[in-house]
Amino acid sequence: MDQCRVVFQPQNKTVTVNRGTTLLEAAHAADITINNICGGDGICGRCKMIVKNGNINAKVSGKLTREEIQKSYVLACMAYILSDLEVEIPEETLATEKVVADTEAERFRVFQKRLAEREGFTSSPLVTKIYLELEKPTLENNTSDHQRVSDEVKKKLKYRSMQMGLKILRTLPQILRESNYRVTATVGLRRDIAEIMNIEGGNFENKNYMVVVDMGTTTIVAHLVDANTTDTLDAKACFNSGGIYGREVTGRMIMAEKKGVEELQRLLVEDINKLIEGLAKDNNISLKNITAVVCAGNTAMGHFLLGLPTDYIRRSPYVPTSTAPPPLRAAEVGIKICPRGLLYSLPGISGWVGSDITAGILATGMSEAEELSLLIDIGTNGEIIIGNKDWLISCSASAGPALEGASVECGMRAERGAIEKVYREGDEIKYVTIGDKPPRGLCGSGIIDLVAVLLDAGIINRSGLFVSDSSHRIAEENGIRRFILAERESSNGKEPIYITESDIENIITAKAAIFAATKILLERLELKFSDIMHFYIAGAFGNYIDVENAVAIGLIPPIPRERIKFVGNTSIEGAKMVAFYKEAFYKIEHIRENCTYYDLMGANDFVEEFQKALFLPHTDIELFRRGPAWLRA
Amino acid sequence: MDQCRVVFQPQNKTVTVNRGTTLLEAAHAADITINNICGGDGICGRCKMIVKNGNINAKVSGKLTREEIQKSYVLACMAYILSDLEVEIPEETLATEKVVADTEAERFRVFQKRLAEREGFTSSPLVTKIYLELEKPTLENNTSDHQRVSDEVKKKLKYRSMQMGLKILRTLPQILRESNYRVTATVGLRRDIAEIMNIEGGNFENKNYMVVVDMGTTTIVAHLVDANTTDTLDAKACFNSGGIYGREVTGRMIMAEKKGVEELQRLLVEDINKLIEGLAKDNNISLKNITAVVCAGNTAMGHFLLGLPTDYIRRSPYVPTSTAPPPLRAAEVGIKICPRGLLYSLPGISGWVGSDITAGILATGMSEAEELSLLIDIGTNGEIIIGNKDWLISCSASAGPALEGASVECGMRAERGAIEKVYREGDEIKYVTIGDKPPRGLCGSGIIDLVAVLLDAGIINRSGLFVSDSSHRIAEENGIRRFILAERESSNGKEPIYITESDIENIITAKAAIFAATKILLERLELKFSDIMHFYIAGAFGNYIDVENAVAIGLIPPIPRERIKFVGNTSIEGAKMVAFYKEAFYKIEHIRENCTYYDLMGANDFVEEFQKALFLPHTDIELFRRGPAWLRA
Ligand code: FES
Ligand code: FES
Repeated sequence: MDQCRVVFQPQNKTVTVNRGTTLLEAAHAADITINNICGGDGICGRCKMIVKNGNINAKVSGKLTREEIQKSYVLACMAYILSDLEVEIPEETLATEKVVADTEAERFRVFQKRLAEREGFTSSPLVTKIYLELEKPTLENNTSDHQRVSDEVKKKLKYRSMQMGLKILRTLPQILRESNYRVTATVGLRRDIAEIMNIEGGNFENKNYMVVVDMGTTTIVAHLVDANTTDTLDAKACFNSGGIYGREVTGRMIMAEKKGVEELQRLLVEDINKLIEGLAKDNNISLKNITAVVCAGNTAMGHFLLGLPTDYIRRSPYVPTSTAPPPLRAAEVGIKICPRGLLYSLPGISGWVGSDITAGILATGMSEAEELSLLIDIGTNGEIIIGNKDWLISCSASAGPALEGASVECGMRAERGAIEKVYREGDEIKYVTIGDKPPRGLCGSGIIDLVAVLLDAGIINRSGLFVSDSSHRIAEENGIRRFILAERESSNGKEPIYITESDIENIITAKAAIFAATKILLERLELKFSDIMHFYIAGAFGNYIDVENAVAIGLIPPIPRERIKFVGNTSIEGAKMVAFYKEAFYKIEHIRENCTYYDLMGANDFVEEFQKALFLPHTDIELFRRGPAWLRA
Repeated sequence: MDQCRVVFQPQNKTVTVNRGTTLLEAAHAADITINNICGGDGICGRCKMIVKNGNINAKVSGKLTREEIQKSYVLACMAYILSDLEVEIPEETLATEKVVADTEAERFRVFQKRLAEREGFTSSPLVTKIYLELEKPTLENNTSDHQRVSDEVKKKLKYRSMQMGLKILRTLPQILRESNYRVTATVGLRRDIAEIMNIEGGNFENKNYMVVVDMGTTTIVAHLVDANTTDTLDAKACFNSGGIYGREVTGRMIMAEKKGVEELQRLLVEDINKLIEGLAKDNNISLKNITAVVCAGNTAMGHFLLGLPTDYIRRSPYVPTSTAPPPLRAAEVGIKICPRGLLYSLPGISGWVGSDITAGILATGMSEAEELSLLIDIGTNGEIIIGNKDWLISCSASAGPALEGASVECGMRAERGAIEKVYREGDEIKYVTIGDKPPRGLCGSGIIDLVAVLLDAGIINRSGLFVSDSSHRIAEENGIRRFILAERESSNGKEPIYITESDIENIITAKAAIFAATKILLERLELKFSDIMHFYIAGAFGNYIDVENAVAIGLIPPIPRERIKFVGNTSIEGAKMVAFYKEAFYKIEHIRENCTYYDLMGANDFVEEFQKALFLPHTDIELFRRGPAWLRA
């Protein structure tokens, strides 16, 4: 195969790639991070580059202005390399900050503590550091060094069964004697056996940190936690680099099948390592004191993490390789924490309902309650779970990432500068940004608000199309109509923050998939919405979603508002509970075993219901006005 | 440090070693196996070599005749290399066969089956191969591949907790589909968790072999067993190569402390690998179908096997690194069986009472009995255990290897051609060899018989010295008197098989140490010999020891003969029980936890009793004639 050399400026980085590779892949190979939130589908228009020299085969795109085309701009994801190239990457194309700190880690701490209290858990992290003052051996008490340490740990931690690896055993006699029998044992739980992972001379009990990770299809979020205090110290997030192989996991699974899962594993582990590194550095914590990583995510992401084949997840009958992989050494997959540190992949339910959902069930406590609850996790893949302490049923709907802020041109994650709230004051449409910063884009809650507000103001109709002359803020560019909400600063001066009809279509599709799945699942169970006493909405939003707006666009039904609760990122919350409380570790396994999966995909009633929901709020608007029969008690 | 090149003939092998190295070490470095049964102490006289060229510093030795000295013979273990050398190794110095097959494996099989029946065990080997015909996934039953396999194994094997490593998980989807869901799972027990170690397409249930190893200080014995039928298929033994660093383990522990334990580990693992290889080859069994190795031995050997430091075993208060190491991958220490095959090191009791003894306790069943039993394991380190189902007490006595056939000039292991029985017929002293082969030397039982016969015939006195003119078979050579029992063929024509006064002294020392330890242990427990209902004698003898002769030389007291039982190599027997029955795996752990160790070494009463026992049969001969007070009920 022909090889082409590509030189990127201003980085002055050169890579050699096969002819026919996209420019986006080449940039990735050169370790240049691009703001490609659509996953290389040519939709987001974020991957613009300028070809200075050489030949490419570029697809035509409405995302480029005539001016840009004249200046040799291309969409990197749609440009196939034909020869050696010299390429310039404009500043706005570069991911300004791949890793962004979540400034609101504080709020998670409170949330999490409350949950633990509810469950009556007592602190017992998956990995514990425990200081031991051992009796010195005498002729009367000359058991082995191994036994001396194990007995004391057993006494303090009450583990039934305990093991110690050869590496630790080999150094044990020296460490004990050099430290005068004052040592810190690091003890990790590996399913039913506790492992003494490390022995250090001295007291390091208070240096026990973990990283809890939510591996979202679009965004990876990592929280740094103190295992002793259960405090969340910091949080960071980044786009999932696997996105270059597809916005949704299906594309990535196809890629994994073609080229092996190793590449996707490498990208994911790199992302996680970067987040961990950043968290450790910013908080002055040594990697060797990070004893465990606890990961939750959808089943495909879980497979990528461990390098497990995903080939059969995406084909009927949708069989994953494993939904409950064993705890491993983090180093076994390349995650860099303390050398013998553990990686816990939380258990999931099926190929389409992953450990992010079992974590969510755990975090809401719905599997412990007498009353019926319903949990909707709004993400690229929307999952719905109904149940109580006696039974749990789950299903999933391929919603797409619109409600997460992706596949919307001006979408972004819920981070500083994101518009998280949109409202009307008289005739004016106003907004609020996260951290009160200058606006940079729209996050999920802002998007829902904006659609609801536009609908309410008569600027869009029930199909999501702009009503002509309804607002002076509707502008047309390259034949595409957009509603302009705000201006943002960019290197080229001011640029508008807007929403297009195709953005709105993506949002309607997402909410329709979720609503239809919820409705069908209830119908199959012969339940009414009114039977649901707790209606939990989870997802990577800002602080909250406006309930009335969510009802107005038909994302959720108009049930009594006090039953609705926004629970945020329950994936990470559940994962934290597992990290801190070994009772939760066993409980989540129990949830996994007891939750049934209903496959709705392709079911006739689902397709029908989905089509009915492709309106704002629904084909049958009366359902949302008066409250339909299936809503009433 | 100066380097010297040593060329060995007729092998034509060259090694470069440091100046000051012994010739024996150099030969070892050249991978030439020498018949050095005294461990390089200059005692056995077996390591003769001829220095053709170059300088050595050789210690004077009575083991060399004047003729030999004139011909430049040296004892390789006592010859330090000073310059480049050319050395010839005479044929008789070479270990003719390092690995010798035990032709009597058959007898072990019967023995072992009986034990299992007594215990009421049902077949459940530590590693099981189980054939699974799995249901194919459907939309109604689309659990993960991992779960599908685990559930079926759990159903069939009733393990509570089960794990599967990443490597197996990664290949699982492909193997299941290629084999049409007909696979064989290899399931190993790792303490409290069962591990699915391997999945193969097809049915290989009946190919499950294990090797059970007794790591004796002097001799390593390995049995090849079929895990399904519990048959012993073959057995092999070899000298313990660690012997070049000392006949007893103390010397080897000193070496391990000086140069690191790795060298001793390497030698031991090499010995075990050679035995396994030979067993596999001779029986047409592929190494990949050997799923586990189960090892028993004294605590120092157990440490060498795993590369654990032995530094503190030999110093008060005699603390081992571990007496209960976890099951490991055999590959982790370099043992070559199936790639993910397991190594089980059985648990021991203390630094001086190893897993050979816990295996012995298990094999005799004494820890299950109401009545009191006493077990003496006669080896380089003699161990004594007293107890019943309620309690167990152990102690050890440094007996030396005389009763194993080492440190006796014509001593040898109990293998073909060994004189295993000596008796008087009228005035004639006759013998029987193992396998009725031409005599090659004396094994332990033959040595005991010979000493007893010589004492009875008045040829030696109670101190073990020859009585002048008592027999025409006493001959003197180089000032050393020897009793000639037989002739053996050698490359130099006929050579005598004999016993010397110094051989007899070694035997007396050994039996005195064991007898004294037994007596003191009983006294400390305020017990009489007559309280002991079962008196087990274990050791690497031939078929049996003659009880009357053992009493005659004072090795065992004259208790009712029906209470005495020779139980052979109980180390290997117990290890087999563990290999075949997981109940035994848990039982031996229970024995370890419940057996107390008494340290007699250096105790005043022990030293006194030891000195009294340095006569045949004892200082107080009346004790053995009439039966002493402490013997009577
Ligand atoms: S348009 Fe290229 S990555 Fe989105
Ligand atoms: S005399 Fe040299 S090894 Fe025994």
